[in-house]
Amino acid sequence: MVASLRLPSLAYLFTSPSAALGRRSEAVFRRGRHPRPPLAAGFSAQSTAAVPPATEERAGKQKSRGEDRAVTPRSQDFNAWYLDVIEHAELADYGPVRGTMVIRPYGYAIWEAIQDYLNVKFKETGHSNMYFPQFIPYSFIEKEASHVEGFSPELALVTIGGGKELEEKLVVRPTSETIVNHMFTQWIHSHRDLPLMINQWANVTRWEMRTKPFIRTLEFLWQEGHTAHATPEEAEKEALQMIDVYTKFAYEQAAIPVIAGRKSRVERFAGADRTYTIEAMMGDRKALQAGTSHNLGQNFSRAFGTQFTDENGNRQHVWQTSWAISTRFVGGIIMTHGDDAGLMLPPRLAPIQVIVIPIYKKADERSGVISAATSVKEALQSAGVKVKLDDSEQRTPGWKFNFWEMKGVPLRIEIGPRDVSSGSVVVSRRDIPGKEGKVFGISMEPAVLEAYVKDKLDEIQSSLLQRVKIFRDRNIVDVSSYDELKEAISQGKWARGPWSASDQDELRVKEETGATIRCFPFDQPEDVKTCLMTGNPASEVAIFAKSY
Amino acid sequence: MVASLRLPSLAYLFTSPSAALGRRSEAVFRRGRHPRPPLAAGFSAQSTAAVPPATEERAGKQKSRGEDRAVTPRSQDFNAWYLDVIEHAELADYGPVRGTMVIRPYGYAIWEAIQDYLNVKFKETGHSNMYFPQFIPYSFIEKEASHVEGFSPELALVTIGGGKELEEKLVVRPTSETIVNHMFTQWIHSHRDLPLMINQWANVTRWEMRTKPFIRTLEFLWQEGHTAHATPEEAEKEALQMIDVYTKFAYEQAAIPVIAGRKSRVERFAGADRTYTIEAMMGDRKALQAGTSHNLGQNFSRAFGTQFTDENGNRQHVWQTSWAISTRFVGGIIMTHGDDAGLMLPPRLAPIQVIVIPIYKKADERSGVISAATSVKEALQSAGVKVKLDDSEQRTPGWKFNFWEMKGVPLRIEIGPRDVSSGSVVVSRRDIPGKEGKVFGISMEPAVLEAYVKDKLDEIQSSLLQRVKIFRDRNIVDVSSYDELKEAISQGKWARGPWSASDQDELRVKEETGATIRCFPFDQPEDVKTCLMTGNPASEVAIFAKSY
Repeated sequence: MVASLRLPSLAYLFTSPSAALGRRSEAVFRRGRHPRPPLAAGFSAQSTAAVPPATEERAGKQKSRGEDRAVTPRSQDFNAWYLDVIEHAELADYGPVRGTMVIRPYGYAIWEAIQDYLNVKFKETGHSNMYFPQFIPYSFIEKEASHVEGFSPELALVTIGGGKELEEKLVVRPTSETIVNHMFTQWIHSHRDLPLMINQWANVTRWEMRTKPFIRTLEFLWQEGHTAHATPEEAEKEALQMIDVYTKFAYEQAAIPVIAGRKSRVERFAGADRTYTIEAMMGDRKALQAGTSHNLGQNFSRAFGTQFTDENGNRQHVWQTSWAISTRFVGGIIMTHGDDAGLMLPPRLAPIQVIVIPIYKKADERSGVISAATSVKEALQSAGVKVKLDDSEQRTPGWKFNFWEMKGVPLRIEIGPRDVSSGSVVVSRRDIPGKEGKVFGISMEPAVLEAYVKDKLDEIQSSLLQRVKIFRDRNIVDVSSYDELKEAISQGKWARGPWSASDQDELRVKEETGATIRCFPFDQPEDVKTCLMTGNPASEVAIFAKSY
Repeated sequence: MVASLRLPSLAYLFTSPSAALGRRSEAVFRRGRHPRPPLAAGFSAQSTAAVPPATEERAGKQKSRGEDRAVTPRSQDFNAWYLDVIEHAELADYGPVRGTMVIRPYGYAIWEAIQDYLNVKFKETGHSNMYFPQFIPYSFIEKEASHVEGFSPELALVTIGGGKELEEKLVVRPTSETIVNHMFTQWIHSHRDLPLMINQWANVTRWEMRTKPFIRTLEFLWQEGHTAHATPEEAEKEALQMIDVYTKFAYEQAAIPVIAGRKSRVERFAGADRTYTIEAMMGDRKALQAGTSHNLGQNFSRAFGTQFTDENGNRQHVWQTSWAISTRFVGGIIMTHGDDAGLMLPPRLAPIQVIVIPIYKKADERSGVISAATSVKEALQSAGVKVKLDDSEQRTPGWKFNFWEMKGVPLRIEIGPRDVSSGSVVVSRRDIPGKEGKVFGISMEPAVLEAYVKDKLDEIQSSLLQRVKIFRDRNIVDVSSYDELKEAISQGKWARGPWSASDQDELRVKEETGATIRCFPFDQPEDVKTCLMTGNPASEVAIFAKSY
């Protein structure tokens, strides 16, 4: 499958906005203090000496488009680096409407890998996929008080259909709790109809003011699970089960050591009794909320009258959950693992796990090298490895090294004339730069090579997780006073400390430090605590951090 | 996967419209002359004697909701039958906004089966998935003259975002050619960037006046492929390749013997040079356009300035295609294979291929029967058969027979106490009603049963196709004059005859008979022809039919 990916070649992003679309501007996706050369194009990487040659057309164009441009070093400007990687690794592009994003094939393939894994897990845990319309009558949104408050400012509204002004405005779904409850009300009658457990993969729209590719866009893709239960205990169990599915996914597939926990009242979902979250530490140490699971209690069932007859013949409102992960997670992967050479993908989510690059100078070396490279590719492919052979003639091996490093491919296999003679290959790890990550003389013999490659992919998968875990733990500071908290936040770290103060105190911390409570983590220390803000007893620690 | 499908139980469709939503009315989906009892609920099937018992709650409810209601016989009112099957087989429900549809888990599982097959084929033929934003600036739609004419009347427009009136209205995508070309223009520079071949799975919106579940809804799901090529020959080859992928899918997976061909000028896609189509004959002999592939020529590339530099350094506009299949195809499956007992699914697309039903009367028979049924289920499951065991205690075997027949499950395995003693099972085919479709004494021995079941599934798959093919051929009449054409159409048949007349003549046929040219089929007779309308030479026959 992956081998047949035909990727559009390097794009020229940031071409001048079309005349008809004045509102597509530089400012659309905030870039901090590092203005992008507006017409820059082409590609080059930091980590190696070879600079990719431009094709004739490009070289010609570039004269009028600006200089060939390197990726901003991560340490210099994290945000500029992030946007550069998205451009150079061909993950996404800007849509014509402010704040929208085109997900390009390579970025979409990462999303597909996420879908493939989660879709199986959702079905294993008893959920069925289905599809709800995206147009929701405006009146629905108004039915649940805190929901309307949370979402009203972000709505896109359809007011004209088929050439006519509509009697009632339609909301383009920002999330589907309201329409789901409207339908559940028609499907749920008896306790025998419960639990009702469904999921949908869909697009959603939120009119965000500050947008950033993958992290916060006007339209994004996600899955949203919705369930209804007969008891509050079942709903709570479900909400916890799903945050657990997300947590395992983050650790085992994405190699992201998220911290799972409960949101504060201030931070929870508009309409939920309790929101569980997985919080990930990005490379700049800001937190990313990477997935949430909500115990909705009876808030929506009361607003929509979603009732069932229990075993004693009494009418009761159902207890509900909803939970979601979105294309934002792709942004999380970029910002967790990437480095100055570009993207670095965990092998289990990588659309291409191994790139094979033939190396030859003389024409008479070509056929031997290409044929060996092809055999290696086919052997790995039939062993279930996602492998691609880059045998294009227009690019030098050095250019290809950079290009596939930029794309974050975990392993590179190099094959030259000498390797062909010795029946061996060179294998380089994306996660260990330079010579240290390079092993010579791995046998081409299919069984040996397959075992070696699979082993290395596993090693990279654990190694990425391990590395990020160390980074995370080094950047979480245990604090016992507000001063310590402020100090930790000002150093760009996460602060973890006992908390039992008021919502007002929480908002004050946000105002004064820019940090919010990311969660009360499930993993709690055992000893008794004193609230870092008030000195009162506190039964839990909370984690504070600045976030996306 | 399929075994874990947890389906919401039988829905009460057609409950009274919510007070807030007066516009959701009976008339939304046209039902011809067979008005549906507005508050009917519950389920019963025609084909067997057993009437499913209502649960207590339902029995109680039904008194105020209306009588338990049978599915309308297909011969009596095809449209009413179709809507009844959708309701009783739990395929879809009506959304709160006029003309929208909720695709329920069982209906969605059929769509997933369609996706699974096509997605692999698209990748095998060199296409990558990606995602374009659904909001398109209004000005884009106006750029291609015939496109705007075709789609303007059907647009849904977002005019308010984030609480503010937008400067430019946004179109909710009815199809993506315009935004695709806007992006292609930024990605395509050289002939080396071609061909560019992508696909997206997405929702689309068309403000249709006459709607019908699956067949024509305000919002629907589809895939839309978009490609750009350096030469008109390549574009033509691609358009033909994709209609061929659809044709094979229809025959081999859906058991629908579509007729593939070229649309007339009058009927082709708004913006295409040539439209290829697959036309399917439904059970009422109306034609359903089940998939289309368009050679767009340079219409969009000229409108959007999508150019490349060819090998000689000259700038040229790209040559393009687009092609789509939608959730409409699910409607086509229902109307092709269904009968009075309900849905009949081709095994290759059936979410559940085999339903196992334990039968026992006395309590002491239970454990033996359930344990045998469970073993049978597990054996088939591990052999890759999509199998479900219906061991619910609340329903009688007779009720279950009807229910799973209604759901169109191709094979039923019955296991009673006598079968347990003899180590055998009873196997019934959905496509052959009554005793004729029933075989007794099939060994429970896993290897024997698996082989038997797989063989039967294959047999049903071919048998469905064969049956529908005979029906199709019996209902296509070769005509050589307009009178013969009118006669055929008035009998509800398809008319095939030589055609080289004008667009005006074609429109006259439509006006006078209600039939349109469905296609000029690829399969053409060899002899010379005379146009049925004008008597002039005609190089091709066309097929005329009434259509959905």
